[in-house]
Amino acid sequence: MVSSKNINNINSFTHHPTLKLGKPLKLENGELLINPQIAYQIYGKLNKKKSNAILVCHALTGDQYASGANPITGKKGWWSNLIGKNKVFDTSKYFIICSNVLGGCMGTTGPKSINPDNNKYYGVSFPEITIKDMVNLQKELIDYLNIEKLLCVVGGSMGGMQVLEWGINFPERVKLLIPIATSYKHTAQNIAFHEVGRQAIRTDPRWYNGNYEDFNTFPSKGLASARMIAHITYMSEKSFSLKFGRVKKENSLSKIFEGNYEVENYLQYQGISFVKRFDANSYMYLTRAMDSFDLSEEYNGKLEHAFKYNISKWLLISFSSDWLFPTSESKEIVSALTTNACNVSFVEIESDRGHDSFLLEVPRLYKILQGFLKGAEN
Amino acid sequence: MVSSKNINNINSFTHHPTLKLGKPLKLENGELLINPQIAYQIYGKLNKKKSNAILVCHALTGDQYASGANPITGKKGWWSNLIGKNKVFDTSKYFIICSNVLGGCMGTTGPKSINPDNNKYYGVSFPEITIKDMVNLQKELIDYLNIEKLLCVVGGSMGGMQVLEWGINFPERVKLLIPIATSYKHTAQNIAFHEVGRQAIRTDPRWYNGNYEDFNTFPSKGLASARMIAHITYMSEKSFSLKFGRVKKENSLSKIFEGNYEVENYLQYQGISFVKRFDANSYMYLTRAMDSFDLSEEYNGKLEHAFKYNISKWLLISFSSDWLFPTSESKEIVSALTTNACNVSFVEIESDRGHDSFLLEVPRLYKILQGFLKGAEN
Repeated sequence: MVSSKNINNINSFTHHPTLKLGKPLKLENGELLINPQIAYQIYGKLNKKKSNAILVCHALTGDQYASGANPITGKKGWWSNLIGKNKVFDTSKYFIICSNVLGGCMGTTGPKSINPDNNKYYGVSFPEITIKDMVNLQKELIDYLNIEKLLCVVGGSMGGMQVLEWGINFPERVKLLIPIATSYKHTAQNIAFHEVGRQAIRTDPRWYNGNYEDFNTFPSKGLASARMIAHITYMSEKSFSLKFGRVKKENSLSKIFEGNYEVENYLQYQGISFVKRFDANSYMYLTRAMDSFDLSEEYNGKLEHAFKYNISKWLLISFSSDWLFPTSESKEIVSALTTNACNVSFVEIESDRGHDSFLLEVPRLYKILQGFLKGAEN
Repeated sequence: MVSSKNINNINSFTHHPTLKLGKPLKLENGELLINPQIAYQIYGKLNKKKSNAILVCHALTGDQYASGANPITGKKGWWSNLIGKNKVFDTSKYFIICSNVLGGCMGTTGPKSINPDNNKYYGVSFPEITIKDMVNLQKELIDYLNIEKLLCVVGGSMGGMQVLEWGINFPERVKLLIPIATSYKHTAQNIAFHEVGRQAIRTDPRWYNGNYEDFNTFPSKGLASARMIAHITYMSEKSFSLKFGRVKKENSLSKIFEGNYEVENYLQYQGISFVKRFDANSYMYLTRAMDSFDLSEEYNGKLEHAFKYNISKWLLISFSSDWLFPTSESKEIVSALTTNACNVSFVEIESDRGHDSFLLEVPRLYKILQGFLKGAEN
């Protein structure tokens, strides 16, 4: 019952440069995913020694369009300020790769893809995936690009979780690892916020138990609610106060439940614009992948065992007002690395802007990244 | 089109002891509410001098059943641990009054009440109300009980907001004021959390723009979601970790979106049990009343002007892990009172349990309240 019509903009006809695997991908849960594809963007040129490649990992709602223009939204890529000529990730010097994660909705195989087995949308028949599965698929791309050793893997939030998995599973394939605003395991509070978001999607009557594609519809209200909830957690109390305070909307309607405050207006806008570019089932699968993330689980809770004999150079970065992935969680990773005498640096950056700081223009972040990359050249 | 059937337990046939006003109540927005009624509970006996009366103000989802058994839930009242013989609010010594707030759904006039003008449910035709309106109605009850001066007004969260309004509007009618875990204005972040909750209710197809009573239905899914979101904010990251960690449910279903973690189970339970005892429109109106709360607005942002010549004795209490109403907000009130040389004490209580601490068994809270009341007798 595949329908060609979609109410949001993420339609199958947009061409995203893609690598299609000639073999199945074995997932952590044991299942085989039939020949998946991975959509990616590259910026800059790979040098002859193939020693200047940087893999940028995107966060939950990001995509491969880290720089340049995003063909779906028409907006600048999410790290455009950082990636480009003479920028931190200088494209006249580095070769930048960014791929859409497994389970995503921008060209990489995910619940919105067609299952080659039955020519139907995967939907919720898509297998459960993990952060490690995402990284295993990225590794296929790096192999395909013939890059023996990446100069750097970097990313924030869920992107930082991927950096951690790269460091643990393929330490010989990466020189520098920079996990930003992240954690080695998702906390109960974070699981709780994700769960209420998923609940909002599940209770949208247009979700149809995940089979909305078959009904040519989309649970946009539920997904918008999920985004609104999440968006609050990406900011800080202070950034809310500074940005909105208790300012009331101009031309505020007297209808008391239609949002009298600017902050409500803003959140509603965030929700509405999000559903135009993201798939509800992808949101379900990716949040679930984050929730299940716990690097210490395999080691009976002893995180330090995960980093035994690790040979990469690490830089952990956190933000002072980030309460979703607080500094204390980065410190636990630093502590586990240090216990193994690994090469690790750590910086907590003062910022009022909460978890989202890694996506915003924070001069100190730029300076530190630039210096670290330059220093590591030698 | 009033229907006698209700899907939740809050039905009109439960008898709540009630005072019906013989006159209209003038609201802050200028409207007149036709002869409202106020449901209340009393514990202990009023002494001859009428000097032992304590008014307890409930929070957003509380009610007048602060002690004893709640006839709707069958559970103990929300401050049963504090109110009773030989307890902090000793009923052999004090006369305790607790009333359901204006806009509530436990017998006091609110959106679930019948509008005497047209014999229909108020629903969203109920006027916009404020914390000050709630206090003005409470004052009618205190007048009716012939109490010239209350010994104490005490409450947490939205209850604390009412305590502040008592202190500002009727300082000559109260000896002691104890606002707990509260603020003098609702922050943008808190408005944001309320807004996503209201959004969940509004997008439930059974809300019918607030007229669900006419359709003999109830937006239980939306209200449950709103409760789940709010419940996360009532706890702390640490209390989540201590209570659940990343423990997975026993007999966890393999269906990945049905909640694999204990914390999800718990939140869902919170949502489901809440809708059995609370009205969705009440939730809309009361959260809106909290959002509009800003004591400094009338004074061009200068809170200290609100407390000029204030003659009551104040005790402010906050909890260290409360991130919804953090200590810094109580301190601003203390600072404004101190600027006026008012009689004010302040304690921040160490607690891992977040905003909800004021409802939980926190020995230090009990000790401080008991000592303060005893000391003030002299």
